[in-house]
Amino acid sequence: MRQDTSNDSPLGLSGGHSIAAKSDYSNARPRVVVVGAGFGGLEVVQSLAKKGADVTIIDRRNHHLFQPLLYQVASASLSTSEIAWPIRALFRKRKDVRTLLAEVDGVDAQAQNVLLTDGTTLPYDILVLATGARHSYFGNDAWEPYAPGLKSLEDAVTIRRRVLLAFEKAEREPDPARRAALQTFVVIGGGPTGVELAGTIAELAHLTLKQDFRSIDPDATKVILIEAGPRLLPVFTEKLSDYTRKALQKLGVEIRLGKPVTECSSEGVTVDGKHLPAETILWAAGVQASPAARWLNTEADRAGRVIVGPDLTIPGNPNIFVIGDTAAATGEDGKTVPGLAPAAKQQGQYVADLIGRRIKLKKPPSPFRYRHQGNLATIGRRLAVVDMGRLKLSGTLAWWMWKLIHIYFLIGVQNRLSVALSWTWTHSIGYRSSRLITYADQQADTDLK
Amino acid sequence: MRQDTSNDSPLGLSGGHSIAAKSDYSNARPRVVVVGAGFGGLEVVQSLAKKGADVTIIDRRNHHLFQPLLYQVASASLSTSEIAWPIRALFRKRKDVRTLLAEVDGVDAQAQNVLLTDGTTLPYDILVLATGARHSYFGNDAWEPYAPGLKSLEDAVTIRRRVLLAFEKAEREPDPARRAALQTFVVIGGGPTGVELAGTIAELAHLTLKQDFRSIDPDATKVILIEAGPRLLPVFTEKLSDYTRKALQKLGVEIRLGKPVTECSSEGVTVDGKHLPAETILWAAGVQASPAARWLNTEADRAGRVIVGPDLTIPGNPNIFVIGDTAAATGEDGKTVPGLAPAAKQQGQYVADLIGRRIKLKKPPSPFRYRHQGNLATIGRRLAVVDMGRLKLSGTLAWWMWKLIHIYFLIGVQNRLSVALSWTWTHSIGYRSSRLITYADQQADTDLK
Repeated sequence: MRQDTSNDSPLGLSGGHSIAAKSDYSNARPRVVVVGAGFGGLEVVQSLAKKGADVTIIDRRNHHLFQPLLYQVASASLSTSEIAWPIRALFRKRKDVRTLLAEVDGVDAQAQNVLLTDGTTLPYDILVLATGARHSYFGNDAWEPYAPGLKSLEDAVTIRRRVLLAFEKAEREPDPARRAALQTFVVIGGGPTGVELAGTIAELAHLTLKQDFRSIDPDATKVILIEAGPRLLPVFTEKLSDYTRKALQKLGVEIRLGKPVTECSSEGVTVDGKHLPAETILWAAGVQASPAARWLNTEADRAGRVIVGPDLTIPGNPNIFVIGDTAAATGEDGKTVPGLAPAAKQQGQYVADLIGRRIKLKKPPSPFRYRHQGNLATIGRRLAVVDMGRLKLSGTLAWWMWKLIHIYFLIGVQNRLSVALSWTWTHSIGYRSSRLITYADQQADTDLK
Repeated sequence: MRQDTSNDSPLGLSGGHSIAAKSDYSNARPRVVVVGAGFGGLEVVQSLAKKGADVTIIDRRNHHLFQPLLYQVASASLSTSEIAWPIRALFRKRKDVRTLLAEVDGVDAQAQNVLLTDGTTLPYDILVLATGARHSYFGNDAWEPYAPGLKSLEDAVTIRRRVLLAFEKAEREPDPARRAALQTFVVIGGGPTGVELAGTIAELAHLTLKQDFRSIDPDATKVILIEAGPRLLPVFTEKLSDYTRKALQKLGVEIRLGKPVTECSSEGVTVDGKHLPAETILWAAGVQASPAARWLNTEADRAGRVIVGPDLTIPGNPNIFVIGDTAAATGEDGKTVPGLAPAAKQQGQYVADLIGRRIKLKKPPSPFRYRHQGNLATIGRRLAVVDMGRLKLSGTLAWWMWKLIHIYFLIGVQNRLSVALSWTWTHSIGYRSSRLITYADQQADTDLK
């Protein structure tokens, strides 16, 4: 691939010629393949509208997932369909977009092909990898069966089943020690997901389930939040971290800071050399990027994220972009762009703009610059923390802001109304509309034995 | 057990003494155990309010399911939580009711114990079995993996996945014959469920998915409805059956009457000696009662339903009632009470009334009498048939009636609003809010290969 260093782009890259050269479209519309329909991938496709490209979006799921609210599916407040949209339906009117339900297995950068797990290949002129991240057990993958993480709808339904089932089993358990373990919920990781899970499980026990049981006392439920670092929500200010800790403690959450978990098993966790018996353990401690770096045979950081240049391409290949949680992008200030939905969206817009300029043979844009809009996290049903530059809020006002922002970012009128409706019940009387224990096919019977 | 034949009950049964005799409650409140939280079981518990009994309701699922709308979950119009309620939450305010998530394995009628699969036993003074029915393959159980039936939320999610996945696979299939098989949906059974499934899949293909695909033509989708009997909806009048057949044909459904399916496999079905290649086969042809007759070692009819007396008790045991789809009850007219939700509810009310009278040592009620309220079935999004005695309707008016009745019978304001909201979208623009392909844990990957 020729590197046109005479170009006035800050990267010295040029794209137009190599694109047109490989295209088999009569009108030379470049084929853009986007892998992953998360916030980043979706934004690329949306922003490529009318830019003159033929777009294929590939995802191994048929739906886009609004991950910031996934913990609410796990805690039975929202149903799966309230935070997920069929990708195909989102682009039904875009005749320039093809949606493929398929799993990517690799990339042949030489031949410019994406390799799918069913053995077929898909040629591209420009490739955008936005394949996200999975939870990481920091080398302790054996812990996964005992401490599920929260990344997909299936993860959320699994966690919902485990949490609700623990209460059901406790109701039937005559042994007090065993019952106490059934009523102990350990959340590992004190970032936003861990804080939100711990707060919502505490409220589930003390508010939603209060009147529902006869043998057990839901108030006896223990929720323990473990964070290896010195404070919760490390990306927020210390004051807001402190507020969060106190607010969670008021909800009845026990918080353990400064020591990592050294063991997870079916019996519970070990932390600071002590064993905590617990039936339910949830993992919210770390993420690992998807295997894009391996597909591309390019450099990655410790979390597996592909190191990209200032225009979000990989070194030496101007036709491959990596964005979102899969990418380690560095801002002009030298800081890594955080793994947040707004960051992925901004990268998606940037890449679409860059591709559009290439197609029109215009000057490439300046390097990607991340505009931080702030951090938000909910603690309970009337409490949240907001850290937006000079605007720092905690409490009920922050919570209303959190609610409005999240409803605003949902797609479509029906989902907004539906989520608003579900929240009205949950936040007024504590009723949660999705308290369903559902199974994969015939698994149910074994759980009841 | 003493049969008090001097009693003026038409059955010569008496209950009061044997109940009090075995009760270990200080105030001698009889322990009523209800197995199954379908329409019948739920009604027993609701109608037992303030009747002086201690009630335990057992179900192997944590939710009551509104089965008449289950096909709408299977066809992606409604989400699982819109038609299911946690049983425990329904009875949270009834301190006389205990909810147990457990599976029943048998009944020891001598010792008056219910046996659970976890090895524990539960004593009862009065037992009500309302365990429903499963689909039946008439001895061809090997067909089940190829032709799933529709009874639980899991069944509905499985069918939804298969139907949506067939279109996704067709989009990627280069071989025309294989693609045609992927776009062929066979529904076996011409009762209300079969008619509703066939109609809704035809509309899914021709309306909802119309713009979504690029390689396949959703209009090329074939929906074939096979009924072994001479007409669809045999419990309706011939005129309404005929209307239904024509309405379905207008929606593009191919109807085959008068010949049973003789083979189901991964390749398709065989009917009338001919093989029909089809990727997706759905079973709506028959039901088999749950194993209550085996637990009780009592007589059952061909469909496995327990033969009960005029007061819905089993022969020789006035303390065991069987109701709903599990029972073969005969009305005074000699006709078997049909397996419909209103019939199960009426039986539930009857049994609760009878138990209440026993507790107060009052005269037992007259034999159970089923009041038929009519039959309803939808065909498509603006068509239904209603057969209510002299009121026989078809078309749009019948469909509005069907809608209003179903929304009325949902439990709670939130679910009614939520279903009304989902239907507004589905019925106006054809959008279906729950087009999610979800999996059991790690199954996803294999489907895409």
